[in-house]
Amino acid sequence: MNHPAHTLDILGIGNAIVDVIARADDAFLDARALPKGGMRLIDAAEAERLYAEMGPGLESSGGSAANTCAVAAALGARVGFLGKVAGDTLGEVFRHDIRAAGVHFPTPPLEAGAPTARCLILVTPDAQRTMNTFLGACVSLGEADLSADDIRRARVTYLEGYLFDPPEAQAAFRAAARLARDAGRRVAITLSDPFCVGRHRDAFRRFVREDADILFANEAEVLALYETDSFEEAAARAAAEVEVAALTRSEHGSVVLGRGGLRHEVPAAPARVVDTTGAGDAYAAGFLAAWARDLPLPECGRWGSIAAAEVISHVGARPQSDLKALVA
Amino acid sequence: MNHPAHTLDILGIGNAIVDVIARADDAFLDARALPKGGMRLIDAAEAERLYAEMGPGLESSGGSAANTCAVAAALGARVGFLGKVAGDTLGEVFRHDIRAAGVHFPTPPLEAGAPTARCLILVTPDAQRTMNTFLGACVSLGEADLSADDIRRARVTYLEGYLFDPPEAQAAFRAAARLARDAGRRVAITLSDPFCVGRHRDAFRRFVREDADILFANEAEVLALYETDSFEEAAARAAAEVEVAALTRSEHGSVVLGRGGLRHEVPAAPARVVDTTGAGDAYAAGFLAAWARDLPLPECGRWGSIAAAEVISHVGARPQSDLKALVA
Repeated sequence: MNHPAHTLDILGIGNAIVDVIARADDAFLDARALPKGGMRLIDAAEAERLYAEMGPGLESSGGSAANTCAVAAALGARVGFLGKVAGDTLGEVFRHDIRAAGVHFPTPPLEAGAPTARCLILVTPDAQRTMNTFLGACVSLGEADLSADDIRRARVTYLEGYLFDPPEAQAAFRAAARLARDAGRRVAITLSDPFCVGRHRDAFRRFVREDADILFANEAEVLALYETDSFEEAAARAAAEVEVAALTRSEHGSVVLGRGGLRHEVPAAPARVVDTTGAGDAYAAGFLAAWARDLPLPECGRWGSIAAAEVISHVGARPQSDLKALVA
Repeated sequence: MNHPAHTLDILGIGNAIVDVIARADDAFLDARALPKGGMRLIDAAEAERLYAEMGPGLESSGGSAANTCAVAAALGARVGFLGKVAGDTLGEVFRHDIRAAGVHFPTPPLEAGAPTARCLILVTPDAQRTMNTFLGACVSLGEADLSADDIRRARVTYLEGYLFDPPEAQAAFRAAARLARDAGRRVAITLSDPFCVGRHRDAFRRFVREDADILFANEAEVLALYETDSFEEAAARAAAEVEVAALTRSEHGSVVLGRGGLRHEVPAAPARVVDTTGAGDAYAAGFLAAWARDLPLPECGRWGSIAAAEVISHVGARPQSDLKALVA
C-alpha cells in the first residue's frame, strides 16, 4: 500500500502538565516517604498539602512527551502534540509554551471538571528529581481527542508510558498506535518510569512486542520491563522485539540497538548537572529529530546526548539555549 | 526617645509580580521598539498580545523589593513584605513563593478587580533583560495596606522606586517612610530604573534628600537622578544626602559610600552571566542582610556581590543555590 508523504516528523501524545520545581533536601523526602527519582501520582488534596510545604517554585511547562516535542521542535523537527489541559491559567501557560516552541497543538481544553495537571518536582542537592503528579484534566484525554489526521501525517507517533496510568488515555494510546500503523507510520514509546512499568507490566510488554517500532527506556525501566537484573539480557530482549531500542544509562551514555544485531555505544555529552528533570525526554527528542532527518543511529544518539546535557544543566525540562547550534 | 528592639530586620514594600521569562533575539525587541535593559509599563491588552508573540516562558515570582526580601531571607535575615496580589492562580503562586522563602507576607489579596501583576521579561543572547510590566492588582496597594506594626518593628523599611508609578502606592510609600522614621527606624530606597527616575525625578530627589537613609542605585539610575553624566559628581551628591549609598556598576562591582567621606570599592563576584534579571535586587538583599548583622560596609558590599552573582547565573530572579554557604 502506498502512503502519502508525511508532513509532520513527530506526533507526541502524553499528559499535558505544568511543572512546579523546588529545591528540597533529602530529609524533606524522607519525612514524607517520597521515593527519590520516581514519579508518583497524588490527588488534589495531597497536591495542595505538598505545595504548601515545599519551597519556592519555578513554573515551567512539562509533561514527558510534551517536553520531547518542544525539544524536537527546537532542533528543527516538524512536531505536533496531543494532550489535555483545562481552560484555566495553567492550561493557558501550557498552551502558550508548546505553541511558542513551534509545536502544533490542536487538542481542545476540557470544558468543565478537573484543573490542568501539575507536577510538584523536588530537586535534591544531588540534582536528582522526585516527581509528584496530580493528573487533573489529563485523565479526560480519550479516543475522541485523537486527531486521526495528525496521526496519519506524522512519520512517527511517540507515546509516553505515563499514559498507561489514566484508563481512558490507555485506550486512546492503543487506538493511536493502530491508526499510525494502519497509515504505514512508525510508533515509538518511552517506558517513562520503572514504577509505572511495574504497575502495567503486561500491557507494556504486549505493546512493545506488538505495536512499537522504536523503544526508549533507561536502565531501570528496561530491567523492570523484563524483570531481570541483567542489562545485557534486557537489551537483547528489547532488540529482538523492536526495530530500534535506545537505552539510556545516565552519565554512562546510551546503547542504541538496531536490526541485525547492530549495537552502538554513545557517550553522554559533558554537563554540569543541576536538575535531571526531563533528561530522558530530551534524549528521545534529540534522537527522533535526527532520525527524522535519516541520520545514522550513532548520530541520533549523539543528538540525544547533547539535548539531554542542555536540559540537565539548568532547572526545568525545556531548553534554555540554542539547541540547533549545539548539535551543529 | 527610646524604641523597642526590632523583631524584623527588613520590611520590603513593592509591586507583587509574577515574572514570565523568555528568550528573545535583538530583532524581536527592535521590531517592537522595546528599549533593551529597561522596564516599561503595559496594559492588559498589550500584555496579552506580547505574551502571544513571545517564546516559551519560565514563571517565577518576581517584583523588585519582593526579590530582595526573598534573597535576604535566604541569607538568614528576618524579613517581611507588603504588596498586592489578586485572589487568582498567579496570586497564589506569589504568596506561596514568598512565604516558602521565609518572608512574612500579611497583605490581603485584592477582592475583586484587576488580576495579579505579571512582568513579561525578554532575555537577549547578551543576558540582558527587557521588562514589560502589567501592574494589575499592584495599582490597588494603598495606605490601608500598610501594616504599621510591621513597619515599626522592622530595622529598615525598604522601598522600590517602581512604587512611584502607581499613584496610590506613591502615597503609601511616603506614609510608610514617615511611620518608619517616627519609630526611629531606617528607610532604604532603590531607584529601580532610569526611566522610572525620569518619570518622577522631583519626587525621587525629595525622597532621597528628606526620607532615605540608605540609597541603592546603579550607575544609569544615579546619573538620571542628578541629571549628570559624571558618576563621581552623582556619587558625591548621593553621599551628601544619605547615610549610606551603594552604587552598583555591573561587572565593575560597586561603590559604597558612608558618612564622613568613607568610600569602599567592592569587586563583582565571578559569574557566568545567563540572565541579569534581579541582579540589583539581589545586591540590595545581600547588602541589607549583612548590614542587619552590623557587618562593616565592605562586607555588606561583598554579600551583595555574591548574591547578585548567584542570581545572574541562571534564568530567574530568585536564588537557586544555598546562599548562606556562598557568603560563608
